[in-house]
Amino acid sequence: MSNEKLTPQRENFSEWYNQVIQRAELADYAPVRGCMVVRPYGWAIWENIQSALDRRFKETGHVNAAFPMFIPMSFLEKEKEHVEGFSPELAVVTIGGGEKLEEPLVVRPTSETIIGYMYSKWIKSYRDLPVLINQWANVVRWEMRTRLFLRTLEFYWQEGHTAHATAQEAEEETRRMLDIYTDFAVNEAAVPVIPGRKSETEKFAGAARSYTIEAMMGDTKALQAGTSHNLGQNFARAFEIQYLDENNQLQYCWTTSWGLSTRFIGAIIMTHGDDQGLILPPRLAPIQIVIVPIFKNDAEASQVMEMVEEVRASLAGRFRVRVDDREGMTPGFKFNDWEMRGVPLRLEIGPKDVEKRSVMAARRDIPGREGKTILPLEGLAETIDSLLAQIQSALLQRATAFRDAHILQPESYAELCSAVEGSWALAWWCGSSECEARLKDDTRATTRCIPLDQPGGEGRCCICGAPAREKAYFAKAY
Amino acid sequence: MSNEKLTPQRENFSEWYNQVIQRAELADYAPVRGCMVVRPYGWAIWENIQSALDRRFKETGHVNAAFPMFIPMSFLEKEKEHVEGFSPELAVVTIGGGEKLEEPLVVRPTSETIIGYMYSKWIKSYRDLPVLINQWANVVRWEMRTRLFLRTLEFYWQEGHTAHATAQEAEEETRRMLDIYTDFAVNEAAVPVIPGRKSETEKFAGAARSYTIEAMMGDTKALQAGTSHNLGQNFARAFEIQYLDENNQLQYCWTTSWGLSTRFIGAIIMTHGDDQGLILPPRLAPIQIVIVPIFKNDAEASQVMEMVEEVRASLAGRFRVRVDDREGMTPGFKFNDWEMRGVPLRLEIGPKDVEKRSVMAARRDIPGREGKTILPLEGLAETIDSLLAQIQSALLQRATAFRDAHILQPESYAELCSAVEGSWALAWWCGSSECEARLKDDTRATTRCIPLDQPGGEGRCCICGAPAREKAYFAKAY
Repeated sequence: MSNEKLTPQRENFSEWYNQVIQRAELADYAPVRGCMVVRPYGWAIWENIQSALDRRFKETGHVNAAFPMFIPMSFLEKEKEHVEGFSPELAVVTIGGGEKLEEPLVVRPTSETIIGYMYSKWIKSYRDLPVLINQWANVVRWEMRTRLFLRTLEFYWQEGHTAHATAQEAEEETRRMLDIYTDFAVNEAAVPVIPGRKSETEKFAGAARSYTIEAMMGDTKALQAGTSHNLGQNFARAFEIQYLDENNQLQYCWTTSWGLSTRFIGAIIMTHGDDQGLILPPRLAPIQIVIVPIFKNDAEASQVMEMVEEVRASLAGRFRVRVDDREGMTPGFKFNDWEMRGVPLRLEIGPKDVEKRSVMAARRDIPGREGKTILPLEGLAETIDSLLAQIQSALLQRATAFRDAHILQPESYAELCSAVEGSWALAWWCGSSECEARLKDDTRATTRCIPLDQPGGEGRCCICGAPAREKAYFAKAY
Repeated sequence: MSNEKLTPQRENFSEWYNQVIQRAELADYAPVRGCMVVRPYGWAIWENIQSALDRRFKETGHVNAAFPMFIPMSFLEKEKEHVEGFSPELAVVTIGGGEKLEEPLVVRPTSETIIGYMYSKWIKSYRDLPVLINQWANVVRWEMRTRLFLRTLEFYWQEGHTAHATAQEAEEETRRMLDIYTDFAVNEAAVPVIPGRKSETEKFAGAARSYTIEAMMGDTKALQAGTSHNLGQNFARAFEIQYLDENNQLQYCWTTSWGLSTRFIGAIIMTHGDDQGLILPPRLAPIQIVIVPIFKNDAEASQVMEMVEEVRASLAGRFRVRVDDREGMTPGFKFNDWEMRGVPLRLEIGPKDVEKRSVMAARRDIPGREGKTILPLEGLAETIDSLLAQIQSALLQRATAFRDAHILQPESYAELCSAVEGSWALAWWCGSSECEARLKDDTRATTRCIPLDQPGGEGRCCICGAPAREKAYFAKAY
């Protein structure tokens, strides 16, 4: 399967994406429309994402917990914008244990409401604050147009939910988690995201302010890759999350929520992949190094396999290594197979390598001869350590260069409309939703974010010409 | 809260259980009947269970994946015993995205059916076998009588699902996983489980053969703490999981499934806990060591806190350590609080300890003076390492002694009926479900398992007097 050629990205990016997921065995379609099965290789990427994020969450004082996935329908109705945002997307349980339920239960689309309810029970005093809880969970949103990883009925994510004594602490937390997402995306996934604020139109249903990291895919479309919301006192008021302050006065808490999902696997695929398949950043790759033995007869086999085992053993404690000793397949078939799966580094070991006490290393990110080097066995682990670091940083550089080459800075509405065909536009914007709507109607591009990094000064809104203090990114998006 | 006295175990074990969960902040009741919130301290125990099991699964060649939680109703109907077993317990989604669904979706009570369906797509040839997949997931069973951790509508577990070419391999896998559960329970949780086979009546709905690990709780009731099922070809036939063998003949696979859930946290609570609260085995305790500083004034505080930090730093890389520097609480209050939470070892540091360069260590498993020792700062990490190992093994010994003291070997039906009041009975059994039913009617005790460890020889069924080749455990159970 994985030796079939992919539809080239330039020909049909979306077809390429679907094929690479199937052939690299990342995920599959489930029997229920819009649901996905995350296969072991895809899930191993998610496990690496989980551990990279979980470590960061714990280092910043967060703890994990688990809240129920069934939420009484009435809970969602307590926050007006929240229910408007989510009610078209709900899966509803109406029967339990053979009986019709008195109150239908919603399968969580997100957990602000049920967690808010519990926080109102747990939080009594300022001494209980801040509450910094995350959960790793599955959630369900009844989407009509689905796409593996990017938009599925059920998906996997983490959702952090925190409660604070002051507005300032809540804003600091919201920004801290955005920084963590940015750091994770850039330094673990080599995805050069742009952190920024969502527009009023694009913000989370029920949030005071939403932040996002936006990533550019290989077809230049944008992908919202993680979000962090300052919920103000909206949910605290809806669920009566209150505390007694130091003066014994009852106050409402300030809450936040933030999430990153299996969608991020889609971001990795579409940021780094090429026409040969996946390219995985070494830090998140389930297999960092694959060793392919090459021999023609039994005599060669025995000496080659001996050295293969020596090499494997010398690397196994430090790296995620796999030996491909499958029988009945040519080395060439195996090369293609592991290229499809995006393994960052391949080591080929044949009889000549045994003689020379060296291995042939092939980088996945540099196809053909240029990506090949002969590495002596002596000091191999150190050499490979630095090679993997080079690959990691080369992927980030390449993705950053691609992104920067596809950001235009239009000065007129006509330029803006043409910029969003095949690029992102960074342009002055007055902040009005009418302008956003106009651009969306004309081009299908949306406001991706108002980047944290602003040029300063003032300009004229690229859409209506009114005075503008901030620049925003506009792009077509997944 | 956690300084309130618990109802003593002897007075009301079940009340004690509910109180300790609340006061140690392990879990809470959710707004939906029968659902639970696993609070951070409880979830941290689960994370340690997960990592201990996951390591064992991966060492034996298993990989993780994620299958959807929504299963078409028709899937469950494909295996006759399976649907009979599970249909009274289902939660059913009938509405999605505001529309009535054509086919209702069941929220997974277990995943044999959906995974069987996917395996039938993925498995083509003997080269694809064995398939060894596990998932960490939430499942839902609409239970009428619920109990935190022991039996909740939604719970968390891992479920392994494997497919093999031969009956023998499937049986070996089933037993291998039972061994892994036993090893985990005994060596990580200090819960001396008894591994055995389930009777026909008690086996999993759809299995050819079920194995279980049975644990004795502090009130002598049994708790099924993990199960491993040989599914024969039942699900392979229902879902057409077939492969081409080496002779190009189409064959049905042999499958297994095995699971261990958050129920195991209940087993830990009820195996080790006492009237002061939880007692956690060091290997699974979220906090292994708590350091409580003791001082009367600022001068003392500064020297004590300096040494507290020195001790913390010397232990932190190796153990899970917490310093309790909360203000406005007496040391005595803190002692009770951490005893309630079952932290295995407490270190007290006061001005005298600073002088002597030593700490006072108090073992949670040995109350009062006898559990206290003075430990010199020099070599503290090594001393504590061996102390924690002693605690771990003392817990196992104590639980084993308790279990063995509460196993009777009745020789008549009258003795059997009286044995199951306050003990387990190990008795010859002919294997008939009529005998099981009679005992259950008369005493409410059930067949817990036919232990792997058999005396050999023959006897007379303790219930009907017919010839019997195996002994079984009978007990009242959770």
